[in-house]
Amino acid sequence: MGSKKVLNNYGSFDVVFKSGKGSVLTDINGKKYIDFLAGIAVNSLGHNFKPLIKAVSSQAKKQIHVCNYFLSDIGVKYADELLNATGFEGVFFGNSGAESNEAAIKLARKFGQLSGGAKRKTIVTLEHSFHGRTMATLTATGQDVFHPETFAPYVEGFKTIKPNDYGSLKDAFDDTTAALMMECVQGEGGVFPLDKEWAKAAADAARKAGAIVICDEVQTGMGRTGTLLASEQLGINPEVVTLAKAIAGGIPMGACLYRGKGNVFAAGDHQSTFGGNPLACRAASVVLHELLKNGFLSSVSEKGEYIQNTVKNWNLPCIEDVRGKGLMIGIQVSKNPVEVEKLCLEKGVLFSTAGKNVLRLVPPLNIGYKEIDKGLAIIKEVLEK
Amino acid sequence: MGSKKVLNNYGSFDVVFKSGKGSVLTDINGKKYIDFLAGIAVNSLGHNFKPLIKAVSSQAKKQIHVCNYFLSDIGVKYADELLNATGFEGVFFGNSGAESNEAAIKLARKFGQLSGGAKRKTIVTLEHSFHGRTMATLTATGQDVFHPETFAPYVEGFKTIKPNDYGSLKDAFDDTTAALMMECVQGEGGVFPLDKEWAKAAADAARKAGAIVICDEVQTGMGRTGTLLASEQLGINPEVVTLAKAIAGGIPMGACLYRGKGNVFAAGDHQSTFGGNPLACRAASVVLHELLKNGFLSSVSEKGEYIQNTVKNWNLPCIEDVRGKGLMIGIQVSKNPVEVEKLCLEKGVLFSTAGKNVLRLVPPLNIGYKEIDKGLAIIKEVLEK
Repeated sequence: MGSKKVLNNYGSFDVVFKSGKGSVLTDINGKKYIDFLAGIAVNSLGHNFKPLIKAVSSQAKKQIHVCNYFLSDIGVKYADELLNATGFEGVFFGNSGAESNEAAIKLARKFGQLSGGAKRKTIVTLEHSFHGRTMATLTATGQDVFHPETFAPYVEGFKTIKPNDYGSLKDAFDDTTAALMMECVQGEGGVFPLDKEWAKAAADAARKAGAIVICDEVQTGMGRTGTLLASEQLGINPEVVTLAKAIAGGIPMGACLYRGKGNVFAAGDHQSTFGGNPLACRAASVVLHELLKNGFLSSVSEKGEYIQNTVKNWNLPCIEDVRGKGLMIGIQVSKNPVEVEKLCLEKGVLFSTAGKNVLRLVPPLNIGYKEIDKGLAIIKEVLEK
Repeated sequence: MGSKKVLNNYGSFDVVFKSGKGSVLTDINGKKYIDFLAGIAVNSLGHNFKPLIKAVSSQAKKQIHVCNYFLSDIGVKYADELLNATGFEGVFFGNSGAESNEAAIKLARKFGQLSGGAKRKTIVTLEHSFHGRTMATLTATGQDVFHPETFAPYVEGFKTIKPNDYGSLKDAFDDTTAALMMECVQGEGGVFPLDKEWAKAAADAARKAGAIVICDEVQTGMGRTGTLLASEQLGINPEVVTLAKAIAGGIPMGACLYRGKGNVFAAGDHQSTFGGNPLACRAASVVLHELLKNGFLSSVSEKGEYIQNTVKNWNLPCIEDVRGKGLMIGIQVSKNPVEVEKLCLEKGVLFSTAGKNVLRLVPPLNIGYKEIDKGLAIIKEVLEK
């Protein structure tokens, strides 16, 4: 396509999609692909999900966007639904994961100042983390590859520690720490789930030093790991959770949820023109409703276990590790992961790579076992070669 | 509404909208309001604009979102349409004005490093400007009120000069300057149009020092001022233009356009999960198509002049100034602007304030003269009291 060069921020594959249905995508040549990527954990209800399409079409007629100096019926309704479902006290709506994390960073700094004065401003993040591409979230990201001199100077007030390492907790937090910010499963970093006991110890240590805990659930949130929030499984009750990707069925939306000591935003502290618009909120309400249906979240866990077990049972020597939570699965391989990705794409299954050598599978949460089997068979075939 | 407290980032008015049609909004009590705000210059085709609704409903069925490691038919099509219409070479799509400006800041820093090494990193912005609420765009914003100690430390590498002041250009730029970044009409700052000759002189001075010029057209872009881009009227050919608000008819979307010396982004430099998704691009394509229809943009200028002339002809002593470009109009008043806003809201016309004492009118671009007259009559009535 001629326009690859005008969209040159992505080294995109030369595949142009025109439509999707359920967990199957169709490109402009009519070729079909099993979707194990879901737009990077975004299209959690698959494509052309009828209740979502119906709601979006109906809401577009009523109102797409309203200025946030006023309220919309659906914005208020969804805010209540989300807080009731997650147990938080307040929410800031933005339009992406980066915006949710920018909100959380500002919130943490305000919390720090209120509780410890000007010196309590440091946000501790983890190695291998990914928090976004804006200047502050890029700085928060604990991967040197994201900090080239090209975009310097970066933002002050961030510090990185090693995850799942008890030694790293020793001097991690003090009276200059405003917050500990971490992903429950590191997605971009290579699908690394946080160890539950370590996450608890880290949260405890941070709180003991007077800091709050922020879980970046941009990728893990909204059912991806088999619970509404992945942080529920860690049992650490974060003061702040950030969401985006899957929250509104593909319509750009982000949320920064806060409670307790994290409930510090006042009018004017942070705003967004589009954030919480009725179109996104209406879509998000449909997504939440589906996730909360009886059996939906447990089916996510079951499918995830099925995929992990199936892949493990292949006993292929090129597979070094299979890990993840729910339908967020990493297959660590000794082969070139991008080559595997390309070959699988040619044979009709779509996923992405993460970290150094990991195939990341994040299919729609309502994918059927038939598609799962079909997609896995292709991956097996490619890995066996 | 109970949920005002959960959405406590805005000191929102207690008005809850449920629907809109054209330039009229309806609240949950059935009360109707003339919309002179358009969601802060977002709903440029008004509400329930049939071609937009039809396109959104049709696209939602096909595909809402696709991972940017691949392309979508409509994403490629719209990128081409936008670049053809604006004369730029490349585009990064994000989801908001803040994200567009974060992209422009990263782009400017990369340009600086490529052209002048590590020292060429400063971005010069203007007093009274507004560039967003993320950490870097907040720092770029030339208003002290947006830089409380609460959110410190801010981002290094920004410098502010006085707009429309030739003296301020004397020592503004040197070999440490990467870019001059400015709004063609300062919106949040109080609807202050840049003086054309000064803007040219500033752009010339910046380029003479080896810097590029970024126009933040988040609010002025996409027809708001009577031309597709407001920078066309300044004749300064910016290397970079940022867009958001009106670009996709209310669906969250932003764009950072670049050309010439500003064409420096390579794959991996900057990315967005949702950016350029087919739903937003399809809506944006409808918006662009409408703006380019014969007579549309000139009608924006005509309506703007009509409003400015009408308000001037009131000869009210409380009106200190009437200014703006196209349908981006500021009425500077000696009365409390928020009181005026409230009283007008009660009587059924919606707008916002900007700067210190300015009523900001940014109605849908396709508003009819009947609604204009009706809305203006209410404002006159309130101002006369």
